Amino acid sequence: MKLIIAVLPGDGIGPEITQQSVKVLKAVADRFDHEFQFDDALVGAAAIDLLENPLPEATLDLCQKSDAVLFGAIGHPKYDNNPDAKVRPEQGLLKLRKELGLFANIRPVRTYEKLLDQSPLKRERIAGADMVIYRELTGGIYFGEKSTAEDGKSASDLCSYSEEEITRIAHLAFKAAQQRRKKLTLVDKANVLETSRLWRKTVKTIAQEYADVELDFLFVDNAAMQMILNPKQFDVILTENMFGDILSDEASVIGGSIGLLASASVGTKNAMFEPIHGSYPQATGKGIANPVASVLSAAMLLDHFNLIEEANAVRKAVELSIKLNVCTEDINKDNHYSTEKVGDFLEGLI
Amino acid sequence: MKLIIAVLPGDGIGPEITQQSVKVLKAVADRFDHEFQFDDALVGAAAIDLLENPLPEATLDLCQKSDAVLFGAIGHPKYDNNPDAKVRPEQGLLKLRKELGLFANIRPVRTYEKLLDQSPLKRERIAGADMVIYRELTGGIYFGEKSTAEDGKSASDLCSYSEEEITRIAHLAFKAAQQRRKKLTLVDKANVLETSRLWRKTVKTIAQEYADVELDFLFVDNAAMQMILNPKQFDVILTENMFGDILSDEASVIGGSIGLLASASVGTKNAMFEPIHGSYPQATGKGIANPVASVLSAAMLLDHFNLIEEANAVRKAVELSIKLNVCTEDINKDNHYSTEKVGDFLEGLI
Ligand SMILES: CC(C)[C@H](C(=O)O)[C@@H](O)C(=O)O
Ligand SMILES: CC(C)[C@H](C(=O)O)[C@@H](O)C(=O)O
Repeated sequence: MKLIIAVLPGDGIGPEITQQSVKVLKAVADRFDHEFQFDDALVGAAAIDLLENPLPEATLDLCQKSDAVLFGAIGHPKYDNNPDAKVRPEQGLLKLRKELGLFANIRPVRTYEKLLDQSPLKRERIAGADMVIYRELTGGIYFGEKSTAEDGKSASDLCSYSEEEITRIAHLAFKAAQQRRKKLTLVDKANVLETSRLWRKTVKTIAQEYADVELDFLFVDNAAMQMILNPKQFDVILTENMFGDILSDEASVIGGSIGLLASASVGTKNAMFEPIHGSYPQATGKGIANPVASVLSAAMLLDHFNLIEEANAVRKAVELSIKLNVCTEDINKDNHYSTEKVGDFLEGLI
Repeated sequence: MKLIIAVLPGDGIGPEITQQSVKVLKAVADRFDHEFQFDDALVGAAAIDLLENPLPEATLDLCQKSDAVLFGAIGHPKYDNNPDAKVRPEQGLLKLRKELGLFANIRPVRTYEKLLDQSPLKRERIAGADMVIYRELTGGIYFGEKSTAEDGKSASDLCSYSEEEITRIAHLAFKAAQQRRKKLTLVDKANVLETSRLWRKTVKTIAQEYADVELDFLFVDNAAMQMILNPKQFDVILTENMFGDILSDEASVIGGSIGLLASASVGTKNAMFEPIHGSYPQATGKGIANPVASVLSAAMLLDHFNLIEEANAVRKAVELSIKLNVCTEDINKDNHYSTEKVGDFLEGLI
């Protein structure tokens, strides 16, 4: 197969981890006789610094023309604490999601036997937990109208959803549930929000087309609690943009490190693959960042093009590296390997 | 002291738990020679059933005239799954918060040595965790304009905040930090939301008046993760309404049971005290609900009127009950006591 992959390393640890997954993808192309072409482009703070634009035209163009986007991370502290900054790195990521129409962000969460004891949660609570979060990614309060009063003394963000936006991701989530344990949990705040009530109503209607899937509902506050109390109860979680952002970061503690969590963002035409962790500025350049989330995102990229054997080879390599303790310091305190060394090891296993 | 206390038991387990805290408050009045008058009123589904109004005029009147409100819980499943219901129990609670101007919801989270092993989190992560969450309670997406399109195919909720709304709760939170470990963490999503940027800007300005308090910032997704990874890092958390709802439920797992978490909601004139847990309909009438959250809310009521010795007597009673395992089944599986028995025991200790 021939694939053109746009590589957007972004900020902070983005470049160093993305480099490892590119290495791994190259090894996959080699072994399985594919032709993967990698085209780099700027995004985020890196792009602001050079071009004053977190998503330069050339980058968007490239992404639109490519078969897939491999994304690193975005964000820089110099913007976080400056509420007056007019241009922020995150705008690049949000615009990219919107322009590419990546409405579904898919975040699998699982545990690794070897890491159970590293989780802040007790082993018996998490062993066997295996869920996937379907987070709506191009709607809600992220993209609704924002405003600040002239005098700067008040501000607002609008959260809005249409039936259509809910429907398209709901179908994906129900289909995923059919391939899994056939349970779908809609997380919302229907006792307070009008948009949540629209979610509940729409999803209930769609559920009729998936009679083999059990549907239940949780308020987001309760879900945040259940995620820790009993993560094994979840199979597929479906939720809106902001709640999905919060819950998936929270869910990362189950696996033992956010450095392990990959995601795929898909739309009707394009697809992007990125770790769920951020740019982790304090770690930049130190060789301590965990490349596994990025490498597993690359595996999701392979899945997306139905290269299942290839994706499994990558996942097997990751599993072996964890089993053998060839890991960065977030999950291997005593005898850790550098970002690059872990990448080399994974590459070698393909 | 003479206090008029409006008692709003509400729905589900609300009445049975509130009964226990009224008992305990009566014991306090007895022992410390106060005069507490308790006036019951309807709210929530209970009020809808009888009067088709989740917050009848008479109830609001009573609350306004009272010195404090003791609130049970609210919510009934028959409304949750009916997105078309025009009247919902939660409207009663939200309207009450708004009408009484209860802008600050204060939720302390701590651990009990005896319960450390019951938490889903590992002992060493949580032992000694001790934080208080200041959640803004009368603004944000809870109270912004809501709308549904005529054709029912789209909906929206507006999140808005003014500098004034942020300022008044920020001062309370900074003052609390000064009395504690002098650290305040603002949780927001300033990399995406305009309202969050207003929060950050406003809180930074106010911080200058509290030079002895260390201020830091966390994005809400990261906060949801840090809450589990390292809850001991938090002293005072300040956040907006929706984020506070999610984070405080999540934080409940640290203490081992949501049935232990109390809250005070304060405004300039009125104050209300309620457990953070919900109406827990499945447990209603079974005598299994934990009355401690309600009893500790009563302790916060006493604190509010500067009845510190009295409040401490209630907290000591709770601590002893936990130490001696006189607990409901959520924290004492094998040899548990009923809601009423726990209440009797606490009453007896005053
Ligand atoms: C960087 C930020 C805008 C982004 C988000 O909130 O969506 C990130 O947290 C994520 O989850 O991908
Ligand atoms: C019942 C509901 C409206 C309420 C809220 O979301 O504020 C509850 O969850 C709480 O935290 O007090």
